[in-house]
Amino acid sequence: MEYDLSNADICNAYTRVRSETEQLINGLSSEDCQIQSMPDASPTKWHLAHTTWFFETFILLKYQPHYTVVDEHYAVLFNSYYNAIGAQYSRPKRGLLSRPTLDQVMEYRKEIDTRMTAFIQQLRDSNILKLILLGLNHEQQHQELILTDIKHALSQNPMHPQRLKHYEFQDRQSSSLNWHSYQGGLVTMGASTKAFSFDNERPQHQVFVAPFKLANRTVTNGEFLSFINDGGYQNSLHWLSDGWEFVQSEAINSPLYWHQQGNQWFRYTMSGLQPLNLNEPLCHISFYEASAFASWSGKRLPTEFEWELAATQSVTQAPQFDPMTLEPSVVEEDNLQSLLGGVWEWTNSSYLAYPGFKPFEGDAGEYNGKFMSGQFVLRGGSCFTPTGHIRNSYRNFFYPQQRWQMSGIRLAADLT
Amino acid sequence: MEYDLSNADICNAYTRVRSETEQLINGLSSEDCQIQSMPDASPTKWHLAHTTWFFETFILLKYQPHYTVVDEHYAVLFNSYYNAIGAQYSRPKRGLLSRPTLDQVMEYRKEIDTRMTAFIQQLRDSNILKLILLGLNHEQQHQELILTDIKHALSQNPMHPQRLKHYEFQDRQSSSLNWHSYQGGLVTMGASTKAFSFDNERPQHQVFVAPFKLANRTVTNGEFLSFINDGGYQNSLHWLSDGWEFVQSEAINSPLYWHQQGNQWFRYTMSGLQPLNLNEPLCHISFYEASAFASWSGKRLPTEFEWELAATQSVTQAPQFDPMTLEPSVVEEDNLQSLLGGVWEWTNSSYLAYPGFKPFEGDAGEYNGKFMSGQFVLRGGSCFTPTGHIRNSYRNFFYPQQRWQMSGIRLAADLT
Amino acid sequence: MEYDLSNADICNAYTRVRSETEQLINGLSSEDCQIQSMPDASPTKWHLAHTTWFFETFILLKYQPHYTVVDEHYAVLFNSYYNAIGAQYSRPKRGLLSRPTLDQVMEYRKEIDTRMTAFIQQLRDSNILKLILLGLNHEQQHQELILTDIKHALSQNPMHPQRLKHYEFQDRQSSSLNWHSYQGGLVTMGASTKAFSFDNERPQHQVFVAPFKLANRTVTNGEFLSFINDGGYQNSLHWLSDGWEFVQSEAINSPLYWHQQGNQWFRYTMSGLQPLNLNEPLCHISFYEASAFASWSGKRLPTEFEWELAATQSVTQAPQFDPMTLEPSVVEEDNLQSLLGGVWEWTNSSYLAYPGFKPFEGDAGEYNGKFMSGQFVLRGGSCFTPTGHIRNSYRNFFYPQQRWQMSGIRLAADLT
Amino acid sequence: MEYDLSNADICNAYTRVRSETEQLINGLSSEDCQIQSMPDASPTKWHLAHTTWFFETFILLKYQPHYTVVDEHYAVLFNSYYNAIGAQYSRPKRGLLSRPTLDQVMEYRKEIDTRMTAFIQQLRDSNILKLILLGLNHEQQHQELILTDIKHALSQNPMHPQRLKHYEFQDRQSSSLNWHSYQGGLVTMGASTKAFSFDNERPQHQVFVAPFKLANRTVTNGEFLSFINDGGYQNSLHWLSDGWEFVQSEAINSPLYWHQQGNQWFRYTMSGLQPLNLNEPLCHISFYEASAFASWSGKRLPTEFEWELAATQSVTQAPQFDPMTLEPSVVEEDNLQSLLGGVWEWTNSSYLAYPGFKPFEGDAGEYNGKFMSGQFVLRGGSCFTPTGHIRNSYRNFFYPQQRWQMSGIRLAADLT
Repeated sequence: MEYDLSNADICNAYTRVRSETEQLINGLSSEDCQIQSMPDASPTKWHLAHTTWFFETFILLKYQPHYTVVDEHYAVLFNSYYNAIGAQYSRPKRGLLSRPTLDQVMEYRKEIDTRMTAFIQQLRDSNILKLILLGLNHEQQHQELILTDIKHALSQNPMHPQRLKHYEFQDRQSSSLNWHSYQGGLVTMGASTKAFSFDNERPQHQVFVAPFKLANRTVTNGEFLSFINDGGYQNSLHWLSDGWEFVQSEAINSPLYWHQQGNQWFRYTMSGLQPLNLNEPLCHISFYEASAFASWSGKRLPTEFEWELAATQSVTQAPQFDPMTLEPSVVEEDNLQSLLGGVWEWTNSSYLAYPGFKPFEGDAGEYNGKFMSGQFVLRGGSCFTPTGHIRNSYRNFFYPQQRWQMSGIRLAADLT
Repeated sequence: MEYDLSNADICNAYTRVRSETEQLINGLSSEDCQIQSMPDASPTKWHLAHTTWFFETFILLKYQPHYTVVDEHYAVLFNSYYNAIGAQYSRPKRGLLSRPTLDQVMEYRKEIDTRMTAFIQQLRDSNILKLILLGLNHEQQHQELILTDIKHALSQNPMHPQRLKHYEFQDRQSSSLNWHSYQGGLVTMGASTKAFSFDNERPQHQVFVAPFKLANRTVTNGEFLSFINDGGYQNSLHWLSDGWEFVQSEAINSPLYWHQQGNQWFRYTMSGLQPLNLNEPLCHISFYEASAFASWSGKRLPTEFEWELAATQSVTQAPQFDPMTLEPSVVEEDNLQSLLGGVWEWTNSSYLAYPGFKPFEGDAGEYNGKFMSGQFVLRGGSCFTPTGHIRNSYRNFFYPQQRWQMSGIRLAADLT
Repeated sequence: MEYDLSNADICNAYTRVRSETEQLINGLSSEDCQIQSMPDASPTKWHLAHTTWFFETFILLKYQPHYTVVDEHYAVLFNSYYNAIGAQYSRPKRGLLSRPTLDQVMEYRKEIDTRMTAFIQQLRDSNILKLILLGLNHEQQHQELILTDIKHALSQNPMHPQRLKHYEFQDRQSSSLNWHSYQGGLVTMGASTKAFSFDNERPQHQVFVAPFKLANRTVTNGEFLSFINDGGYQNSLHWLSDGWEFVQSEAINSPLYWHQQGNQWFRYTMSGLQPLNLNEPLCHISFYEASAFASWSGKRLPTEFEWELAATQSVTQAPQFDPMTLEPSVVEEDNLQSLLGGVWEWTNSSYLAYPGFKPFEGDAGEYNGKFMSGQFVLRGGSCFTPTGHIRNSYRNFFYPQQRWQMSGIRLAADLT
Repeated sequence: MEYDLSNADICNAYTRVRSETEQLINGLSSEDCQIQSMPDASPTKWHLAHTTWFFETFILLKYQPHYTVVDEHYAVLFNSYYNAIGAQYSRPKRGLLSRPTLDQVMEYRKEIDTRMTAFIQQLRDSNILKLILLGLNHEQQHQELILTDIKHALSQNPMHPQRLKHYEFQDRQSSSLNWHSYQGGLVTMGASTKAFSFDNERPQHQVFVAPFKLANRTVTNGEFLSFINDGGYQNSLHWLSDGWEFVQSEAINSPLYWHQQGNQWFRYTMSGLQPLNLNEPLCHISFYEASAFASWSGKRLPTEFEWELAATQSVTQAPQFDPMTLEPSVVEEDNLQSLLGGVWEWTNSSYLAYPGFKPFEGDAGEYNGKFMSGQFVLRGGSCFTPTGHIRNSYRNFFYPQQRWQMSGIRLAADLT
């Protein structure tokens, strides 16, 4: 990697990112921060501790001479999946760790922050600085997970608790759906080494892309409701075989968090149960639902390369993260502005290694590479993604049945 | 039921029992009170709320004119299993209810206590007084469950958290095992109607009991260790078929909470991990393990009627509940004193209706009767059982694989 | 055991019983004999081989000097559950054993029959004769299982195959339901040692039985249909808690083999799908359904001792087994004649050891005793039970959710 | 599609392929043809019927005026997964269909063959001829499945039954492993329309392939044994996360059908249990094991495009299918000859649509397209693949955990 970092830059970034994480627990009780609603999700408290453990384990313990850990139990409790580091506490049981308490975890954060800022200031090794930058990007990923996970956890409560007090109905008309055309050809995909990126975005490489067109915005709640009302969930011919099995066995007939009461549709939001806004971008659907909707529409999902090509050729800019909103904005523009920072967009690309892929060196090698089977790529970031954490080459990845992320649909089609 | 109750008696009992419940959460964080480690167990917070809901639902809502509930959501959230009352929140998900918070639940308790004490004082209907007494006995049952459930929950944490700061190793020799003989015959079993009892202890009825003998004390940790060391868990011939399937499929080879480190055995207690005391009464075993141990010993488990006959003929008295100890006492006496208040003793009797059994009237009819399949009777109470809640006719019942209760073994044999 | 057996008697019985088994496969293809529709059931071919293995293993291999087994693989393949004998092929996979073929199994039977008849003729040890008698009773139990298991297996086929070509609709009116009263008292229960019985029927012992009354016949299809039409499957208050969970999770709303087409009810029988005969005795229900029906009726199930007392005091005689009928007869009498040989009657007694119970000696000790948890006793035999295999003290036992046996309901009530 | 077919060609092909299918059941009993060892596999009898149903349903019923089906039950029984056609009998229960018997299924085949050959002879519509060709290719796919499925079924039997009497140990040395280099570039991939191909091989399209090298032969049993002996199954760092979970939870530590007895390795084959031949091509491994082995080797799996490019540039020719061998040949050549007809080779490409993919028209549209999630592509055909059914563009696909196909590993690496 070719870019340079100063100690001061990193120190400032460290302080900012760590503080932004802690702002996310405003309005949550210690009980809210404790609960884990499913194996895929983690308690807020665990995220707070794990991101801290990441710095302690990958930086301080490794590069600070004679380092003594804050609590030796944390090596097991807060290791997510790094087998090279050691054993891990059972993932589905993270919600059972009432100790350390939230207060103790916040003290742990404070202690590591003190140690880290001191460590950064005297640091001379740019490789370690880059590793700290990885830790900050890692923490930003967990910021988004804190939000998606607590949303899922609170949604389990029939009281429909509000994390945010206020909900503003976006009383605006969505732009009509139209299409942008691309001629494709042999294009360069992936992240350059001139700025931070994850290993899975690299190396840059050539891909041949056939001509295609892409929708100006993602699918709205209203459009998806038409699919539902047309019997979309009951017609096997729109569905991938695995997807049909999924919706049948799980008795799924609407996006996650949608509730029908009489003839009225509601949606659980961070501000409690709210009437469904037909103009808002659809989110919280699985890849299977995205694929079925695309088939019903006579269109298809884009590949991740089609998406990246369109993003590269546009002037889209990601919106600022706003912790007080947490709903994707109604798209009123016709200019692909919504490619970034609205909802994560399922692509029809499996999450696989780029040609020449090299995992991060050392223990961080487990960061991304070992997940390269069974998942699909999502692109574009969402309104839950922190400011500065969205870029054109970013590859998010989830299993096709997962729905608790801010995942939506942008349609594509062959250009013929 | 023939016994009389005064308003003052009930009011005092109400205040005492409710207060005793709240003393049990000393030393627990709000996170500790939130967690649920398995579907069989409930969070401490849920127990605190459910027992309160019981009074609100079965007394105030039913008998207080124009009563308005504190929160209408609680009807679903804190109903355990009363289908006649209405729908229930999913039992395995009780640990996900971060709202209401512990503070809010304590306020709920306070509010209902105010309403209940006012209600009791003006009460003239002795049937309602008796129903309140049922509510207090119900709360005492949950006091024991609060202890067994939090013990299980904390045991999931590799930090082996301490609920009690102090642990006193009982440095005393257990009495030797010897036998008390009974001629049996046609005997009267069950609870009279002269004092409170649960419906499942009634009516009194005749049972023919063959001659038998009963051990003076329950099996010790040391004796069970001999079973383990003799390969007891690996020899199918000692086991019931279902029990063998159970220990094989769950890979069980010691009582719950036992840990072997090298050659040394430890046991998780309310005071953290402690060396195994060979003289202490064994507890936390399933019926299957009790049955296998008895077979290995060349003996058998008593029936619930043998047990009750022995208890009736002895002068045993239950010890006072001590929230600071929470371990069964080493038995030094030879006089069956340990029949009450040591460990719950698995009997070889299925939990079934007594001849002429009548469930409680009204909605409380679901209290006991609907569980009369698949479970075995345990007798005697444990060191977790509240003072005043132990009696000779008391029938506790659990599934044969359950181990998180304070369950142990007293051997019996035919007298021939 | 006090009874005497002659070699000739046993030899005749051996030849008769073995031949009766083989008559049961008339009309079945080799494919029919291969299939296993659930872990509870076994393929016909496996029953044919297992009963043969039983004689080879418990008699010839044990008591014939220098005995060489027919095929050493059979020790594993056809051992059902005798851990003392050795390992067993996985029970749920018995349907995968295409080899040995049916022809080979019939040859195995023939070979063992030759060896056994020769062995019996020279036998001088009455204990071995009694063990052979156990083997014959064992084979008779499997005769009934061959029928229940193939019925279940064929029922899985949408073609509703016919095992019997002919079906005779019993165009007769069932007797009205009325009651026989018993004063009970201290009575002797269990089998004497003067004739063959299983270990679980012994020893005879005293039981105190309270006054009760018993229905003259078992519940009819028509009566159970009234329960269904009254919403019995939807009303939790009739159900044991485990039973409610069972019917909810399995979506059960009628007895096994019942099919509703429009407004018409049908029942799968050995002669294919047939209109439901409202006058026939109900069968193929679980204990849970029996219990719920009894509760809905304002009655209860009898205990096994009430049942045995009534049987002992009646002059009922079991009907002859008729392989060409295989439906329980419509009961036209008012005299408890139907206690034997109609349908197995669920009792409210758990399957537990009688006081002083001693398992069979030797390897046959695993025959009955190790199943004494979790199951309920059924009494009376069914129209599938071989002639000579029904008696008053006979205790059949199944898990409360099992429905593929010929199980029905006889109501009882307290006499007050 | 541009190619021409004559009625005579199709009629000859029909007769040949149908007959080849029936030769595969030589040596199998009717019981062998009945059994189903797992949901992924089907009974031989079902394959025989389903392929017949395919012609009856997609050709005769659709295009023969006034056609009457042989048996109306078959529409449900033998429909595999065509929702557009109608409901399907439960896939995991196919082994329970004892009726129709094998004899009846063979009669069904004969009847349809008579009808089909008559139908073909008078046919004028080349689109229908092409559909018949699809049916023949479909039947060839099931020929391979008949072999893989019966191998799996018979492997469940501890008697290690032999389908083939004779086993010839290939006493030859495998060629050493060496590498062929490719410069890649923009290449055309996929099947032309000049001959039959499946829809998923089309359309031809441009792909950019980076320089790479490919092994001359697939991995041998001996090489994989080195991986095992080096602790490959115990070292998480070689494994994809899902793969590690798979081998841990399933306790997998060798390829399917491998058995270790003492220090000796054996392998279940169509000729029973045989000593492991270290020179033979490895097969019966999952994608996960292939990926882990490649990682342990410091190499990687090829993409499907790298594989196809190499195949296109080579002169490899598929060997003739030999029903008497059924083991992959030891590779002695250095010339990539083994690309075809040895073992199916896992690629690192997910099974997804080619750009511009169009499913078959009509009901056959469900043939391939709906499986485009969660599976990986395998290339090359195996020694189980029928003669004439192997081609460079052929895309086989299975889930990454599946092991019962003839699946092996060819290593690749970047060329740098």
